[in-house]
Amino acid sequence: MEEVDHLAQERSRAEFDVEAMKVVWAGSKHALDVADRMARVVASDPVFRKDNRTMLGRKELFKNTLRKAAHAWKRINELRLTEEEASMLRFFVDEPSYVDLHWGMFVPAIKGQGTDEQQQKWIPLVYKLQIIGCYAQTELGHGSNVQGLETTATFDPKTDEFVIHSPTLTSSKWWPGGLGKVSTHAVVYARLITEGKDYGIHGFIVQLRSLDDHSPLPGITIGDIGTKFGNGAYNTMDNGVLRFDHVRIPRDQMLMRVSQVTREGKFVQSDVPRQLLYGTMVYVRQTIVSDASKALSRAVCIAVRYSAIRRQFGSQDGGPETQVLDYKTQQSRLFPLLASAYAFRFVGEWLKWLYTDVTQRLQANDFSTLPEAHACTAGLKSVTTSATADAIEECRKLCGGHGYLCSSGLPELFAVYVPACTYEGDNVVLLLQVARFLMKTVSQLASGKQPVGTTAYFSKIQHLTQCKCDVTRADDWLNPSTIVEAFEARAVRLAVNCAQNISKASNPEDGFYELSADLLEAATAHCQLIIVSKFIEKVQQDIQGHGVREQLQILCNIYALFLLHKHLGDFLSTGCVTPKQGALANEQLRKLYSQLRPNAIALVDAFNYTDHYLGSVLGRYDGNVYPTLYEEAWKDPLNESVVPDGYHEYIRPLLKQKLKLSRL
Amino acid sequence: MEEVDHLAQERSRAEFDVEAMKVVWAGSKHALDVADRMARVVASDPVFRKDNRTMLGRKELFKNTLRKAAHAWKRINELRLTEEEASMLRFFVDEPSYVDLHWGMFVPAIKGQGTDEQQQKWIPLVYKLQIIGCYAQTELGHGSNVQGLETTATFDPKTDEFVIHSPTLTSSKWWPGGLGKVSTHAVVYARLITEGKDYGIHGFIVQLRSLDDHSPLPGITIGDIGTKFGNGAYNTMDNGVLRFDHVRIPRDQMLMRVSQVTREGKFVQSDVPRQLLYGTMVYVRQTIVSDASKALSRAVCIAVRYSAIRRQFGSQDGGPETQVLDYKTQQSRLFPLLASAYAFRFVGEWLKWLYTDVTQRLQANDFSTLPEAHACTAGLKSVTTSATADAIEECRKLCGGHGYLCSSGLPELFAVYVPACTYEGDNVVLLLQVARFLMKTVSQLASGKQPVGTTAYFSKIQHLTQCKCDVTRADDWLNPSTIVEAFEARAVRLAVNCAQNISKASNPEDGFYELSADLLEAATAHCQLIIVSKFIEKVQQDIQGHGVREQLQILCNIYALFLLHKHLGDFLSTGCVTPKQGALANEQLRKLYSQLRPNAIALVDAFNYTDHYLGSVLGRYDGNVYPTLYEEAWKDPLNESVVPDGYHEYIRPLLKQKLKLSRL
Ligand SMILES: Cc1cc2nc3c(=O)[nH]c(=O)nc-3n(C[C@H](O)[C@H](O)[C@H](O)COP(=O)(O)OP(=O)(O)OC[C@H]3O[C@@H](n4cnc5c(N)ncnc54)[C@H](O)[C@@H]3O)c2cc1C
Ligand SMILES: Cc1cc2nc3c(=O)[nH]c(=O)nc-3n(C[C@H](O)[C@H](O)[C@H](O)COP(=O)(O)OP(=O)(O)OC[C@H]3O[C@@H](n4cnc5c(N)ncnc54)[C@H](O)[C@@H]3O)c2cc1C
Repeated sequence: MEEVDHLAQERSRAEFDVEAMKVVWAGSKHALDVADRMARVVASDPVFRKDNRTMLGRKELFKNTLRKAAHAWKRINELRLTEEEASMLRFFVDEPSYVDLHWGMFVPAIKGQGTDEQQQKWIPLVYKLQIIGCYAQTELGHGSNVQGLETTATFDPKTDEFVIHSPTLTSSKWWPGGLGKVSTHAVVYARLITEGKDYGIHGFIVQLRSLDDHSPLPGITIGDIGTKFGNGAYNTMDNGVLRFDHVRIPRDQMLMRVSQVTREGKFVQSDVPRQLLYGTMVYVRQTIVSDASKALSRAVCIAVRYSAIRRQFGSQDGGPETQVLDYKTQQSRLFPLLASAYAFRFVGEWLKWLYTDVTQRLQANDFSTLPEAHACTAGLKSVTTSATADAIEECRKLCGGHGYLCSSGLPELFAVYVPACTYEGDNVVLLLQVARFLMKTVSQLASGKQPVGTTAYFSKIQHLTQCKCDVTRADDWLNPSTIVEAFEARAVRLAVNCAQNISKASNPEDGFYELSADLLEAATAHCQLIIVSKFIEKVQQDIQGHGVREQLQILCNIYALFLLHKHLGDFLSTGCVTPKQGALANEQLRKLYSQLRPNAIALVDAFNYTDHYLGSVLGRYDGNVYPTLYEEAWKDPLNESVVPDGYHEYIRPLLKQKLKLSRL
Repeated sequence: MEEVDHLAQERSRAEFDVEAMKVVWAGSKHALDVADRMARVVASDPVFRKDNRTMLGRKELFKNTLRKAAHAWKRINELRLTEEEASMLRFFVDEPSYVDLHWGMFVPAIKGQGTDEQQQKWIPLVYKLQIIGCYAQTELGHGSNVQGLETTATFDPKTDEFVIHSPTLTSSKWWPGGLGKVSTHAVVYARLITEGKDYGIHGFIVQLRSLDDHSPLPGITIGDIGTKFGNGAYNTMDNGVLRFDHVRIPRDQMLMRVSQVTREGKFVQSDVPRQLLYGTMVYVRQTIVSDASKALSRAVCIAVRYSAIRRQFGSQDGGPETQVLDYKTQQSRLFPLLASAYAFRFVGEWLKWLYTDVTQRLQANDFSTLPEAHACTAGLKSVTTSATADAIEECRKLCGGHGYLCSSGLPELFAVYVPACTYEGDNVVLLLQVARFLMKTVSQLASGKQPVGTTAYFSKIQHLTQCKCDVTRADDWLNPSTIVEAFEARAVRLAVNCAQNISKASNPEDGFYELSADLLEAATAHCQLIIVSKFIEKVQQDIQGHGVREQLQILCNIYALFLLHKHLGDFLSTGCVTPKQGALANEQLRKLYSQLRPNAIALVDAFNYTDHYLGSVLGRYDGNVYPTLYEEAWKDPLNESVVPDGYHEYIRPLLKQKLKLSRL
C-alpha cells in the first residue's frame, strides 16, 4: 500500500509542540517512555493481533484470549518487566481477560482484607500465577445491594471449617470475571454465620478447581453466563456462574484483617479500623476514571482523524469537497468530547494523588478526609464513565455509515466500555451516595462543621447563593475565576434547593427518596465542578513546551462552557447566570472551536496511540482510509465464496418457482 | 418450568382497560387483530426461532436468515396472506434481510421512478420474487452528498446502451443491503452522461447476477462489506460492495418517469414534475418513525417489566426488598421513555395521514404543502430515531448488570437499531434541512407569505415572541394550551434568534454555517413541538375504553414536561417560562410519575408483544426471570465442556511453571 501521510497537511498546521503535549498527556517523560515501548512490543507481535476478533465464534475467541494472556505472561517474564511495565503491556494487549480480575481485584482484596500471615501465604502464589483468582461478590439476585447477598459461610467448630453454601437460586454467584472457565480460586463474599448468628458479609478465599486437572472441586458448579453485548468486546471474558453445595474451607481462609472468627467460633473485631477497606475502593475507582480518559481519547482520536479525511458537500468549481471536520455541527459535537478526554485525564491524575494522600492519612489514623474522598471518587467514577459511554457512541455516529462497521473499531470499543457504567457501582446508585454526602455537608454547616476537600466551597455558601455572574462580553468567560464561581454557585444552589425541599417532607428519608431525581442533578453539578476546577488547576501548573499551555487553556474553556451550555437550565434557574450571559458563553464557545480546529489532529496525535491499539481503519495514523476499508471487507467469512452457502436451498428455489399471485 | 405469573399483582393494579388500549396502540381493531395473528404464526414456528442468534458465526447466521426468509415467503403464500398481513409477518420475523430492501426500497423506487411500461415489465417479476432487488445509492466516498456520487452511466448511441462504470475506488457502491450475497438486480444511482454532458444522478435497473447460477455477471465485482455492530443484529444482512467495469445495460433500464434519454441520446425532462419523487421519501421516512415507536416500546417493555421483578435494598423487618421500579430515579429515567414510545406512535400515525394527504395533493398537482411535509418528515425521522437509540441504551442500563447479557435482548436491539440514525439521511444533515426550511419560513413572513401545516404557528409570531407563561401552580401545567404555547414560544424564539444572528453575518450562507449548532437546537424544538401537539390532539379524539384517555393524558403530560425539564435552558433563556414555573413543572412531573406507577406494567402489556418478538429473558410476560436467566446461560458454546478448550496449552503451563520472581 502507498506510504503517504494523508494527514500531513493537517499536522503541519499545529500551533504547539506535539512531543511536549505527549509528555503532559502521559503524565511524565518516564510514563510516556514506558507506554511507548510497551505499545510497540505489543503492536509488533503477531500473537497480539486483534483485527480478526469481531469475526470469531465464542469458543475460538475465548481460546485466542487464553493464548494472548499466556503469551503476555511469557513476554513479561522474558523481558523482565517491572510491575509498571507489565501493567502497561497488559493494557495495550487490549482484551478483557481473567488476568484483569486476578491483578485488579483478587490481589487488592487479599492485600486489603488479608492479615499479614494470609498475605505471606497467598501473595507469592498469586504473583507467580500458581493460582489464578477472581472476585466473586455479585449474585443473580443481588448486585448493588451487597448487604443482601445470600451465600452463606457457616462456621463449624467441630472441624474448624466454614461451610460455603448457595441456599437459593438467586444466591448463585453471577458475573464474576475469570470465574467461568479459568480461575482456580476466588474471593467469595458470603454471610458469615457463627454461633447461630448472622454477622453480615465477609470475604473468603475459596479454591474452586483442582490444580491437577482444572475440574471443579466437589460441591462446586461453575459455568459461563453467556454471550454479552457486541462482537469480540467483553466476550473474551468468562464471566461466570457459581453454586456451592456445602463446600468446606479451613477457618484461616476467611479474610481476617478487620474481623475474625476464633477457633471456638467467636466473632471478634480486630483493632484495625473498618474504614481501611475504603482505601481499596478509592484505588479501584481512580483506575476506572483513568480508563475513562483512555477509552474516550481513543474514540475521539478515531473520529477526529476520520473527520479530516471524510469530505462531503461544498465542492466549489470542481475542487475538493469540505472536510466534515470543518462543519460547525461536527465541531460542536466532537470538540467538547476531545476536551472531555483531556479533562478526565487530569482529574484522573489528581485522583491518583488523592489516593496517595488518603492512604498516608489512614496510616496516620487520620480518617477525617475519608468520607469526602469516598464521595468524590464515587461521583467521578459515575460522571466520567457515563459521559464516556455516550461519547463513544457519539463518535461512532460522527463517522456516518462507516462508523457502523466493526472495522471502524468503534462498535467494539462501545460494547466493551459500557459496563463500566454498571460495574464497581451502578452510576445512579453512586450518584445518590454523593447526594447523601452533599445533604449531610449542607446540614452540618449550621452546626459550624467546616467542609473539607472538594466540598470546601460550601463554606462560601452565603456568597455563592447570592452572587451574580459579572460577564458582560463573550471573552469575560475566559476568566477562570468567573467560570469556577458560576459552577460553584450552580452546585451550591442546586444542593441547597434540594435540602430545603427535603426539609419540607414529613421525614428526611422520605424527602430524600421523593427528590432523588433532583438530587442526581445536584450531585452531577458537584462532580462537574470538581472536573472543571482540576482542569483549571492543571493549566495553572508549570507546563513545558511551545504552545502547550495555550492549547490546554482552549480545551479547558471548551469543556467548561460546553457544560454550561448543556446544563444552561441549571445555571439560569438558580439565577447565577442571565440568559444574555448564557448567549455570550455560547458565542465564546464558537470562537474556541475555531481556535481549536487547526490543532485538532495534533491534539489527538498527542495521545500517542499506535494503529494496533486504536484498532480502527477510520482512525489510521496515515489517514489512508478508503483502500483499507475496501481490503478489510474481503476478509469477512461471507466472502469466502462468491455464491453464498444456502443459495441452493433458500434462494434458487424462490427465483425458480412459478407463482401465480392473485394479488397482482 | 412453573406456570406462575409473577407480575399478576402488578397487572391487577391497572386502572384502565388494557384490551381497549391495545386497540389504540395498534391503530384499530383490525390492525390489532392482524398483528396478533401474525405474531402468533411466527412465534409458534420453530424455523423462526431467534434465541440462538447471538451465538452464531457470521456464515451460519446468514444462512439461517436465508432460511427464514424463504420460509416466510412459503408461509405467506400457503396462508394466502394479504399484503398487510405479509408485511406484518415479516415484521415479526424480526431479522434484517435482503427482503426488507426488496420490498422497502427496490419496489418503491421502481414504482416511484419507473414509467408505466417499466412498471408493467418489472413489477410482476418483483412481486413473484423471480428477481431480487436492492437499492444501490451510497458509495465508499459519498453517502449524505448524493449529488457527489461518482459511478457513471454513459450513453452509447451506437448500441443504444448505457455503460455503467466505477471510475475510482471511492465510487464503489458500499452499504446497500441485500447486495452482497443475494440480490440479482439493483437500482443503481449513477451520473448520467450523454452527448458528452453530465446530467447528474439518475436511477438504473442493473442485473448483477446470473439467474442460472447466481454468479456475478461479467464486469461486476460484488462482496459483503464485513461485520457490523453487535452479535446477530444487522449481521444477518449482506450489506455489499459493488464495482462495475464498463457494464452495459439496455437504454430502457434507466428509470424514466421524470427524465429520459432518447434513442439518439438526447436528455429530456418528461412533463411529470420532479417533486413527485419526494412522495416516496415522505413514505419511507414515515415508516421509520413508526418503526422508532416499535423499537422504543419494545425496550421499554423489557425495562419496565424487569424493574417490577428486580428488587434491591429497602427490606424492612426481613420483608421483600423494594422493586427498583419504585425508586424515583428509576421512574424519572424510565417513564419519560414509556411516554415517548406512545408519543412516537401517535406522531407516526399522523405522518401516515400526512403521506396520504400529500399524495392526493400531488395527484391534483398541488405542490404547496410539499416543502413543509418534506421538512416535517425529515425532522421527525431525525428526532425520533435519535431519541430511540439513546432510549434503548438507557433501558439497558436500567436493567443493571443483567441488561448487558445478550439474553436480555437489549444489546441486540440497540445494535440493530442505531443505524436508523444514519441511513435514510444522517440525522444532523436532516435537521439542518429542517433549519433551512425554518429560516426560509421566518424570512418569508415579512413578505406576507402564510406559513402552512406544522409551521402555521409562525403566523402568531408577534404574540409568541412576547407572551409569558401564566402558570402559578404545579397543576396549571396540565392545561394543554399552556403546554402548546410554551413549546410554540420556545420554537419561535429560538428560530427568530437564529435568523437575527444570521442576518448579522456578511452573507446568509456564512451565517447559516457559522450558527449551525444553534440551528440544530431550533430545528429540534420545532420537531418536539410537533410531537407534543400531535399527542395532545390524539388525546382529544374520541377514545374508547375505561380509563384509557386518562392514561394517555398522563403520558402526554409526562412527555411534554419531561422535555420542558430537559431543555429548560431553552425555555428560560427565551424568557417564556420563569425559573419558578420551571420548578413547578418539575413538581408536577413527580406527581405524574406517581400516577403512572400502578399502570406501568399494563401500559407495556398494551403493546401486545409476544415473548418471541420481545426476545428477552428480562422482559418475559410472566416475569419468571431468574430461572430462565440461569437456564439460558448453560446454552453458551463455552459451556460445552467444563474444562475449556485451551486449558492444556495456555492455562496449565502457567499454573505449573516454577517461577522465581525477583520482584517479590
Ligand atoms: C461486565 C461486567 C463485569 C462484572 N464483573 C464482576 C466481577 O468481577 N465480580 C463481581 O462480583 N461482580 C461483577 N459484576 C457485577 C456488577 O458489579 C453489578 O452488575 C453491579 O454492581 C450492578 O448491580 P446490579 O446488576 O444488581 O444492578 P441493580 O441494582 O439491579 O440495578 C438495576 C436498576 O436499579 C437501580 N437501583 C438499584 N438500587 C437502587 C437504589 N437504591 N436507588 C435507586 N435506584 C436503584 C439501578 O440504578 C438500575 O437502574 C460485573 C458486571 C458486569 C456487567
Ligand atoms: C446499516 C446501514 C444500511 C444501509 N443501507 C443502505 C442501502 O440499502 N442503500 C444505500 O444506498 N445506502 C445504504 N446505507 C448508507 C447510508 O445511506 C449512508 O451511510 C448515510 O446516508 C450517511 O451517509 P455517510 O455514511 O456518507 O455519512 P457522512 O455524510 O460521511 O457523515 C459523516 C459525518 O459528517 C457529517 N456531515 C455530513 N455532511 C454534513 C453537512 N453538510 N453539514 C454538517 N455535517 C455534515 C454528518 O453529520 C456525520 O457526522 C446504509 C447504511 C447503514 C449504516
